[in-house]
Amino acid sequence: MIADAIETRAGGVATPLGFRAAGVSAGIKANGAPDLALIVSDTPATAAAVFTTNKAQAAPVLVSRDHLDRGGHLARAVVVNSGCANACTGDDGLQVAKAMAAETARLVGCPAEQVLVASTGVIGVSLPLDKIRRGLPAAMAALGAGGGADAARAIMTTDPFPKEAASAVHLGAKTIHIGGMAKGSGMIEPMMATMLGFVTTDAAVPPQLLDRALREAVDDTFNAITVDGECSTNDCVMLLANGASGVAVDQSNYDAFVQGLKSVCLTLALGIVRGGEGATKLVTVTVTGAASNADARRAAKAIANSPLVKTAIHGGDPNWGRLIAVAGRAGVGFDLARASVTIGTTVLFEDGRPHDEASPQAAAYLKGKDIFVSVGLGAGRSSSTVWTCDLSADYVRINADYRT
Amino acid sequence: MIADAIETRAGGVATPLGFRAAGVSAGIKANGAPDLALIVSDTPATAAAVFTTNKAQAAPVLVSRDHLDRGGHLARAVVVNSGCANACTGDDGLQVAKAMAAETARLVGCPAEQVLVASTGVIGVSLPLDKIRRGLPAAMAALGAGGGADAARAIMTTDPFPKEAASAVHLGAKTIHIGGMAKGSGMIEPMMATMLGFVTTDAAVPPQLLDRALREAVDDTFNAITVDGECSTNDCVMLLANGASGVAVDQSNYDAFVQGLKSVCLTLALGIVRGGEGATKLVTVTVTGAASNADARRAAKAIANSPLVKTAIHGGDPNWGRLIAVAGRAGVGFDLARASVTIGTTVLFEDGRPHDEASPQAAAYLKGKDIFVSVGLGAGRSSSTVWTCDLSADYVRINADYRT
Repeated sequence: MIADAIETRAGGVATPLGFRAAGVSAGIKANGAPDLALIVSDTPATAAAVFTTNKAQAAPVLVSRDHLDRGGHLARAVVVNSGCANACTGDDGLQVAKAMAAETARLVGCPAEQVLVASTGVIGVSLPLDKIRRGLPAAMAALGAGGGADAARAIMTTDPFPKEAASAVHLGAKTIHIGGMAKGSGMIEPMMATMLGFVTTDAAVPPQLLDRALREAVDDTFNAITVDGECSTNDCVMLLANGASGVAVDQSNYDAFVQGLKSVCLTLALGIVRGGEGATKLVTVTVTGAASNADARRAAKAIANSPLVKTAIHGGDPNWGRLIAVAGRAGVGFDLARASVTIGTTVLFEDGRPHDEASPQAAAYLKGKDIFVSVGLGAGRSSSTVWTCDLSADYVRINADYRT
Repeated sequence: MIADAIETRAGGVATPLGFRAAGVSAGIKANGAPDLALIVSDTPATAAAVFTTNKAQAAPVLVSRDHLDRGGHLARAVVVNSGCANACTGDDGLQVAKAMAAETARLVGCPAEQVLVASTGVIGVSLPLDKIRRGLPAAMAALGAGGGADAARAIMTTDPFPKEAASAVHLGAKTIHIGGMAKGSGMIEPMMATMLGFVTTDAAVPPQLLDRALREAVDDTFNAITVDGECSTNDCVMLLANGASGVAVDQSNYDAFVQGLKSVCLTLALGIVRGGEGATKLVTVTVTGAASNADARRAAKAIANSPLVKTAIHGGDPNWGRLIAVAGRAGVGFDLARASVTIGTTVLFEDGRPHDEASPQAAAYLKGKDIFVSVGLGAGRSSSTVWTCDLSADYVRINADYRT
């Protein structure tokens, strides 16, 4: 079943029925900004998650994986802190992540295994458990159906703005809601799912189907963006489905559900790119003419991660030769004599020949904020689209003194 | 045979006996800077070269490959222009590269196949053959044993300084000389040999042995550096051996020759890194504890190309967590519980535990210009060293308006 309509709405993780959220200051960030987010489902929700493929997995990743397995893929709450990644913190860090879940479970009134945890911030610094313990009661007290925006703010690190999205999927007379929030904004290249993303729905979805839906949605959204080609120790996207809408998702309406899920995930993912560290432009990179889907994705990612391409776009320079040079080194099927480069709608290189006379037109187009570039590999019929941002001097400034 | 001594000398491509060089202004660069270099051997030299692995190969790469093959790996001259890469220029570009070699051959008095050509600069712009034709007689007239420095200047693009090196290899009573020049400084990650490098020697070396020596030397030098992970359309390292010293290289003294060759290549390669676009620091990255040599090199390259690592070093921030995060995502054997990070001589992470108390010491060390970082993967006994530079806001500035 295809949805009758997918309606994009204002809202976030507390928009679906039966979910409440909050974001408070627990004092983990030195500047007193919100740093503790809580999402609670009124009833146990089925849960699915994708985690970073980084082999240096942070304590909260290990704990959430374990809780999903041992809790039968049911979750009542998600607790998230920013300001400290609790990564590379050894056994002590693992104990803190466990205690963070246990304390939340005690306050919510559920088994510890039904609490998922996530952290983001500096690597290698101990997460102060006492601050989490002091902050949690305040978060519990603040929980509400209007708390999604506060939660989205509380998970930010260098993000310039919070990222929320929601949609309503109409299925005949019935409606399910999907809502989400995410944070970026460095170390962004989802090899699995690089960043923190939290999505809720009031559909009832069995765990296996929920897992399949999440992977399908993430592949075309969170996994198709890159800010700097980095993959962090803490990344995850979690999806909770509590059934409060009274609508069950099964094979008959699965496609409609995934459609709505992708809509929310894509909005969040593009928000991450727009809010990439130092970003001034959203860049859509489409590769066509690839010998396979894998080649297309690989070439598109190589282009999207190229510092030379990203700086040229930042400077508004239609230096299409850099796009060809990256395609040529990307380790994919490539035929220079059939290759092409298009910036906006201006063809700058085609069938092995430059059209440099079109450069002024492309340069004018590159002054915009939403940039589309397309590279034809001349090697087949597959294509792929990924999203990235430009590379500015501000990226360097932000990252040269992240901890100071 | 190991060399009795390898003496590092001032000098460049014209230092070995029987070689002359020149660098002149042919008007290809709009600002009138030197842009045409010529190296001539008095007699036909054996020649070897490694070329970019980029599938978008520039016209001069195609022509030089062809000339090496058809000329029986003999060369009398190398002609190089900067200011225009003659890449992605179609059949017209190929004709220009051929004509550039033919005109040089006519002036030198040798078959066209004994001339190798190279170009560096902007991609996709036509190389003006008339300017090359007008510049070549001036270059011929300027040829001399003292012309290496002029040649090294004439091949620069965004390089902040010219790169030359020379060594004398003493073998008993006999001596051979090796000299070279190179240019960077963006698009530097030699997947084969990314940049232009030209090395001469007055040893007599048969073509096959010369080829083997060049590949061996390049692997540990030019192929072990990276500025920005890019691989250009034009990169090559060429090596000419004319035998003017009267010393023949064979199996008995091959090791000594390679030792001298590596010394010259390493000096040139490190010069490229020091002169990397926007670089303020030379960073030596050593990976130990790898399951294989390939893993060690792969992890070292991933660290050396990480924008987050390079910006942290630029900012003097001992953010060791980023080194661990890159090692964890590098696709190599990695055991967090046995991993380690050392900056200078300060251990910041060991056996799964942070030593953040040592951060101030590491921060003080990072104020220097020559930085050593080491990451232990905890997965085996192999190791690898690569060299890179930091990533500064100047890199962005240089590349955001390269063509304007």
